[in-house]
Amino acid sequence: MNAVNKNTNFVVGLNIPAEIGMEEKDICTPALIIDLDVFEKNIRRMSNFVKGKGIRHRAHAKTHKSADISLFQIEHGGACGICCQKVSEAEALVAKGLKDVLISNQVVDLYKIDRLVALAQRARIIICIDDFKNIENLSSAAEKQKVVIECLVEIDCGAGRCGVEPGEPVLELAKKITVAKNLSFSGIQAYQGPAQHIRDFYERKAKIDNVIEEVTDTIELLQNEGLECKIVGGAGTGTYSFEGSSNVYNEIQCGSYVFMDADYQKILDEKGSFISEFENSLFIYTSIMSHTKPDVAICDAGLKAQSLDSGLPVVFGRDDVTYLTCSDEHGVISDPNNSLKLNDKIKLIPGHCDPTCNSHDWYVGVRNGRVECLWPVTARGMGF
Amino acid sequence: MNAVNKNTNFVVGLNIPAEIGMEEKDICTPALIIDLDVFEKNIRRMSNFVKGKGIRHRAHAKTHKSADISLFQIEHGGACGICCQKVSEAEALVAKGLKDVLISNQVVDLYKIDRLVALAQRARIIICIDDFKNIENLSSAAEKQKVVIECLVEIDCGAGRCGVEPGEPVLELAKKITVAKNLSFSGIQAYQGPAQHIRDFYERKAKIDNVIEEVTDTIELLQNEGLECKIVGGAGTGTYSFEGSSNVYNEIQCGSYVFMDADYQKILDEKGSFISEFENSLFIYTSIMSHTKPDVAICDAGLKAQSLDSGLPVVFGRDDVTYLTCSDEHGVISDPNNSLKLNDKIKLIPGHCDPTCNSHDWYVGVRNGRVECLWPVTARGMGF
Repeated sequence: MNAVNKNTNFVVGLNIPAEIGMEEKDICTPALIIDLDVFEKNIRRMSNFVKGKGIRHRAHAKTHKSADISLFQIEHGGACGICCQKVSEAEALVAKGLKDVLISNQVVDLYKIDRLVALAQRARIIICIDDFKNIENLSSAAEKQKVVIECLVEIDCGAGRCGVEPGEPVLELAKKITVAKNLSFSGIQAYQGPAQHIRDFYERKAKIDNVIEEVTDTIELLQNEGLECKIVGGAGTGTYSFEGSSNVYNEIQCGSYVFMDADYQKILDEKGSFISEFENSLFIYTSIMSHTKPDVAICDAGLKAQSLDSGLPVVFGRDDVTYLTCSDEHGVISDPNNSLKLNDKIKLIPGHCDPTCNSHDWYVGVRNGRVECLWPVTARGMGF
Repeated sequence: MNAVNKNTNFVVGLNIPAEIGMEEKDICTPALIIDLDVFEKNIRRMSNFVKGKGIRHRAHAKTHKSADISLFQIEHGGACGICCQKVSEAEALVAKGLKDVLISNQVVDLYKIDRLVALAQRARIIICIDDFKNIENLSSAAEKQKVVIECLVEIDCGAGRCGVEPGEPVLELAKKITVAKNLSFSGIQAYQGPAQHIRDFYERKAKIDNVIEEVTDTIELLQNEGLECKIVGGAGTGTYSFEGSSNVYNEIQCGSYVFMDADYQKILDEKGSFISEFENSLFIYTSIMSHTKPDVAICDAGLKAQSLDSGLPVVFGRDDVTYLTCSDEHGVISDPNNSLKLNDKIKLIPGHCDPTCNSHDWYVGVRNGRVECLWPVTARGMGF
């Protein structure tokens, strides 16, 4: 497999950081760069995992918001389709050829419902449900536009966000979906977000074991009423091996595994070592743009080039310099040996990949020191 | 003055949150909305301040990255021109008609220098300097393109970022600029970033008094060598009254005052009250999209709709609900009285306006409950 794309007419400037064929060192900073070899290796590993388990992988596009990467995950990574979080993301990705989309979220606004339903003319659209009135509104819009929308009832697995309690509340919603015109009950969405980032393996596993038990009971309850779950979906990069090996979930929804980030690399495996099946393929490439003090260098990647919600970025591949703090446009790098020079470039592992990607317009794919592709962040800013 | 613009052909969807003339309550969320009455009042107040002092206001566009707002600040707010932070920002803003631009930052990459110098064909371009080699590179590029670039020597006033120490180091750089071909020495940049956010009035004032003293000494040193400072620039929304009343600074560079944010509103005036000369005009408009627990509502503005670096957003205009925490796409709202309903919309005061604006593509200007204008975030993502 090979990640080359065909767009070659870019002029660096404004929001375009590179040209195809350019040497890596000439990329305009700050920019998001992808190490394509590692990126492809991560995708192969996930592909092999799901093949071995006989389950599906519905790759989560909320991480990268890129049509190119979504299509790559389907064509070369065995993904059955994608997840995304918003109608506007789905609009952008369907427009670029994605055909099987789960919006792993609620869509309750009437105008957004109309747009969602319109998308079902062009792609398989699946949506999450946690409210009765929402079922009526979706059904009425789908009937008007003569399409069928597939619905998953979302269980709140402990994140305290969307979703209903497992068991009876799921059954009640599922029944209502089943009788609603132009909707079909397709199963359950059961994603435990916060568990993804629990450091300790056994603590993480215990959270998911508990969820699996609740999901199992709920499926049984539904089956007793004649309601089959075509999709039992959930899981992320931190817990996918638990849900994926459960014989209960049949669709896992990992996103961050393609890139990884500083926060995800703090979680531990069974032996207490940092997890290693996926490696960092995504970096914020940044230049030293001021160095007036011997032990401190200033780089050009600040708050607008990343999200700090999960902590500071980590300098990749060198332990002599450290990213200390940042302001809107600047990062402060501790350089105790005065080893950085003006215009030197370094790679930062972002603290949290998803919102960091949403700050940028382009991914610059690099292999063997050269720019091989430029992929737009297709659904950047599309939060509606 | 009136902030109406002439663009009226928008279709809501993808990244477009509103149409001109739409009722405020129909704006697609999450979206950045501007209360135009308050926005204009903030701009009038700053305009009156500088008029009264006989100084210039070079409005900082890094806050809003909007050509429409920059032009409005010049046409209706008495601004002499703008500041921005990056060459690509300047490219985007000059392309939209801005003619007098200070990049209040260093540009040291040779490719960026060429682009910076090219802009000087179309606008007055001023740049900050803290390195000798950078002077040579700028001079050589400006000579080749037959333009003159104005240079300010940047003083590190205590932010620990870019800039040199006051006094002799400034003089040495100024001398080198003076003899460099196609550069002109225009003065000093002395912005104390962290002081902007110091809560206590007297502590904040003491920091700036100290800076003013250093700047005064440095100006004297330069004058003794025959070097005049056409521009003595700096100051932000937290400290502008000190620099602006100093009789030393002649250009202040406020940005956030047009919008304000939750962090800026924590700083205190002389009497220990929250500062009140500028009011919140910018909000993240967000909808309740899930409410399965009686005391917790979930809204659709999470990490991708804002930056949390300076803390959580604050719900505007109601004390019965509180923004508790957020994840990528969701905000968790404490709703102890169960007063929020599905699809209710609330306004959030962003924790930090600058990087929050950089997450969005549009400002939706609202007056009397109707959408009056849609302004693109012209230089969004332009960090190069």
